[in-house]
Amino acid sequence: MTKYYGGIDLGGTFIKAGLLSENGDIIHNFAFPSRVEQGIPALKESLRVVARKLVEESELRGAALAGIGVGSPGTIIFPDGIVTGATPNIPGWVGTNISGIFSDFPFPVVADNDANCMGLAEATFGAGKGTKNGFYLTLGTGVGGAMFVNGAIVRGASFCAGEFGHMVLVYNGDTCKTGRKGCLEQYVAAGALCRSAMQLAGKYPDSALSSQPGELDVVDIFDAFKRGDQAAVEAVSANADMVGVAIGSVVNLLNPEIVVIGGGMSQAGEKYIGLIRKSVFSFAFESTTSILKVEAAKFGNDAGWIGAACLNIGSRPLP
Amino acid sequence: MTKYYGGIDLGGTFIKAGLLSENGDIIHNFAFPSRVEQGIPALKESLRVVARKLVEESELRGAALAGIGVGSPGTIIFPDGIVTGATPNIPGWVGTNISGIFSDFPFPVVADNDANCMGLAEATFGAGKGTKNGFYLTLGTGVGGAMFVNGAIVRGASFCAGEFGHMVLVYNGDTCKTGRKGCLEQYVAAGALCRSAMQLAGKYPDSALSSQPGELDVVDIFDAFKRGDQAAVEAVSANADMVGVAIGSVVNLLNPEIVVIGGGMSQAGEKYIGLIRKSVFSFAFESTTSILKVEAAKFGNDAGWIGAACLNIGSRPLP
Repeated sequence: MTKYYGGIDLGGTFIKAGLLSENGDIIHNFAFPSRVEQGIPALKESLRVVARKLVEESELRGAALAGIGVGSPGTIIFPDGIVTGATPNIPGWVGTNISGIFSDFPFPVVADNDANCMGLAEATFGAGKGTKNGFYLTLGTGVGGAMFVNGAIVRGASFCAGEFGHMVLVYNGDTCKTGRKGCLEQYVAAGALCRSAMQLAGKYPDSALSSQPGELDVVDIFDAFKRGDQAAVEAVSANADMVGVAIGSVVNLLNPEIVVIGGGMSQAGEKYIGLIRKSVFSFAFESTTSILKVEAAKFGNDAGWIGAACLNIGSRPLP
Repeated sequence: MTKYYGGIDLGGTFIKAGLLSENGDIIHNFAFPSRVEQGIPALKESLRVVARKLVEESELRGAALAGIGVGSPGTIIFPDGIVTGATPNIPGWVGTNISGIFSDFPFPVVADNDANCMGLAEATFGAGKGTKNGFYLTLGTGVGGAMFVNGAIVRGASFCAGEFGHMVLVYNGDTCKTGRKGCLEQYVAAGALCRSAMQLAGKYPDSALSSQPGELDVVDIFDAFKRGDQAAVEAVSANADMVGVAIGSVVNLLNPEIVVIGGGMSQAGEKYIGLIRKSVFSFAFESTTSILKVEAAKFGNDAGWIGAACLNIGSRPLP
């Protein structure tokens, strides 16, 4: 009997979910409201509805559901899915046993951190397929990361690894939302790009960004960047240079064979990725870049549930 | 028959070597001139003399030599010991097959990078004993590092991992000897501490460092620091704060359970390590520091050969 693997990506607004074949083919996927604002019991029921739907969709196709993986924000003890670290988007979530929500389902349900799931999707079936040492980062509202070393995901000693956005970029620099000084996230996340583009728009009155009504968002900025708008080009180039130096630092430390850039900002396209790549290659040692690829993520917004589904696929041994 | 494990630590001036029991007891150790200035053939012969001496010292004690490990500066392909990356201290070393130097010896000879060996010594029998996820750094003329993740050493995709000294501390900051801007090493290595102490000595005419004849070295500075000399206290405190932020960044990324600080500067003692620890704990996330220890290295100048000996000890599986 054909086996499918269910993946669930828990977000503050939507639960994204889908079925994956053992070879990484997307069989079916859908979204369902998380109902976080109705409290934890409603959220748990949403997750169970999603799981039942995954069972039904498998049965419809004459396949068995081999297991479900859940990606959740916060610090998640793998594989049981005990939530030990908070995420501001889901109040009250700490202390939950994610696997326990599904204890009456007749297959294994395991859970991991959502950034780890994104990395796992890309490492198993995406831009990092076939590699053993990779660095997977997300650039968007926040900056996060996941790593593979010697073929295994790096979860860390207390399942907190991957806080790429809170590595130092500028010693004693600007204060980030966590109170640290000089963190990468404060300089390169979506909000930082918007602030710097607004400033530059003031300097270049001819820029399309100067006449934009209201607040700028990253989509406006990247659109203007692609058209060659001077303010946008300067802002995006400075952003890519900082991102590249930070990635280059990690490359000097970990010597991966692939760096995969995901998250909302990565969808700006190859022109942006190319600027980041150039900066990585100038900061990282030649001995490391001779074998290094820097690529955009393959799975975009689907990486979370795809990676969660991968948690149960035996082809990648779980450490 | 008792088995001993030989370790050789190749330096630009001396080869340090010794015999280790399977439990990590130091049986015998010695130093021998590297004769690097006489060229590669003389260096190779020095290494063979050292290996023969390790055989003799084992036989004297009625034990068999189970194998020899060699730690070398540069980029070293493990386990064969092909030197693919240069070290300025040993001209002409690139291209050498280190294991090949000992091909007529009746036991395995493997080789690894010297910083990896230092980390391996501390992880196997030293300050990181019993841990699976550790970060091992050396502070001295240069700044280097080694890492263990999921119980295995991180060599990287092309055996170049661990360049902790060339992670960014100050984006677009001072230029380091490799031409990069803002590298940690440029701000915290021994030379940087001396430069900053000299400047502060000018500001505090009462400082013992002001009346020091000639160039300051780190031993003078740490001695004055221990006596509470104001210029030295300011210089060392600033150094420790920067080192701690850089370590804290790596802790946020890798979430190790132990950080071990070695190299010449670590011998300044607990007062210095305590300042670094304080800075690490303020920059790293609480979720990571709840389980974190920051300790001085145990083996000092012997870590290199001890770790090299560990390369052949089966108790730590080789990845």
